[in-house]
Amino acid sequence: MENGPLDETPLFRPAILKEIDFTKASVKFNPPVSPTNPGEDLLMRPLCQADYDKGFMELLKQLTVVGDIPKEQFLARYNQMKKCPNTYYVTVIEDTSVGKIVATGTVVVEQKFIRGCAERSRLEDLVVDDTYRGKQLGKLLFQTLFILSEHLGCYKCSLECLPSNVAFYEKFGIEKDPQLFMQYRFKKTQ
Amino acid sequence: MENGPLDETPLFRPAILKEIDFTKASVKFNPPVSPTNPGEDLLMRPLCQADYDKGFMELLKQLTVVGDIPKEQFLARYNQMKKCPNTYYVTVIEDTSVGKIVATGTVVVEQKFIRGCAERSRLEDLVVDDTYRGKQLGKLLFQTLFILSEHLGCYKCSLECLPSNVAFYEKFGIEKDPQLFMQYRFKKTQ
Repeated sequence: MENGPLDETPLFRPAILKEIDFTKASVKFNPPVSPTNPGEDLLMRPLCQADYDKGFMELLKQLTVVGDIPKEQFLARYNQMKKCPNTYYVTVIEDTSVGKIVATGTVVVEQKFIRGCAERSRLEDLVVDDTYRGKQLGKLLFQTLFILSEHLGCYKCSLECLPSNVAFYEKFGIEKDPQLFMQYRFKKTQ
Repeated sequence: MENGPLDETPLFRPAILKEIDFTKASVKFNPPVSPTNPGEDLLMRPLCQADYDKGFMELLKQLTVVGDIPKEQFLARYNQMKKCPNTYYVTVIEDTSVGKIVATGTVVVEQKFIRGCAERSRLEDLVVDDTYRGKQLGKLLFQTLFILSEHLGCYKCSLECLPSNVAFYEKFGIEKDPQLFMQYRFKKTQ
């Protein structure tokens, strides 16, 4: 059991978000925003344990089914991710004026033997709080994670996408692949 | 630099392949084969470092671009995978009569916060040596990895698949998803 305030240690090295070359952005931002300047009272940074109390899990419920996750379960998952070096880049945007997580998205890196022992990334679980629409946060976060993937040395970045969202991703140069996305659900309720 | 014979420590706990309930197989095998009995002189097991000298990387070249990977680079990648707990299940089939890796496939597990802090799996880099066709090895390996995904507790298993291979995967109950697979290559040569 945790007692007292939760740890603010970042899930990954925060400087990475400052090191990426945002001039590589393939979309325009108006007004101009960036990972280091996402907007008034807004801060982009790695996930930390304390984000459980800042509404991180509630935000994910705007994306999909989450369930009611006790703090211990969240911390266990966080620590499991942390034990996988250079793999999970769960990134959040916090509204520091109210201490609330208002956007999140994740880069997951997969290590390969093919293609010269390459690495590829996947973009997962991107969501912006409904009440923070119109602030370019989805576009900013996605562009950041996309450039981060290249910065991390990945040869390829991919995602699964509903047909209704294709136009959003095509703006960044991401294209429909000739391959099909196929899946099977073992737990039909999830 | 490594000297002497390479390590035969398995990448993951070998007993897992024996623990899975192969009666859950959704396809028939004739003659009957299984993870514990894949055929005469054949052995299914986790990847180990010594597989570098048993043609593991040459086998991957039958799947896609690999390049000439020095032993040190292979070992570095292997060790990086090993440092990520419960993530990489690179599985091989060896022809023990000649000490050669003749098939391989990988389950990669991704940890999530959504869906009750769930885990999902992806099936990657499945290939069978051309000269070992007709021995049901692709079907056996895929069926094993698919059941392994469920055994590991994943709520979902997915893969990317060329249209020409859809029929193969549909035999296992895996379906085309309404989502599209989209990607971007940072390194156009890879």
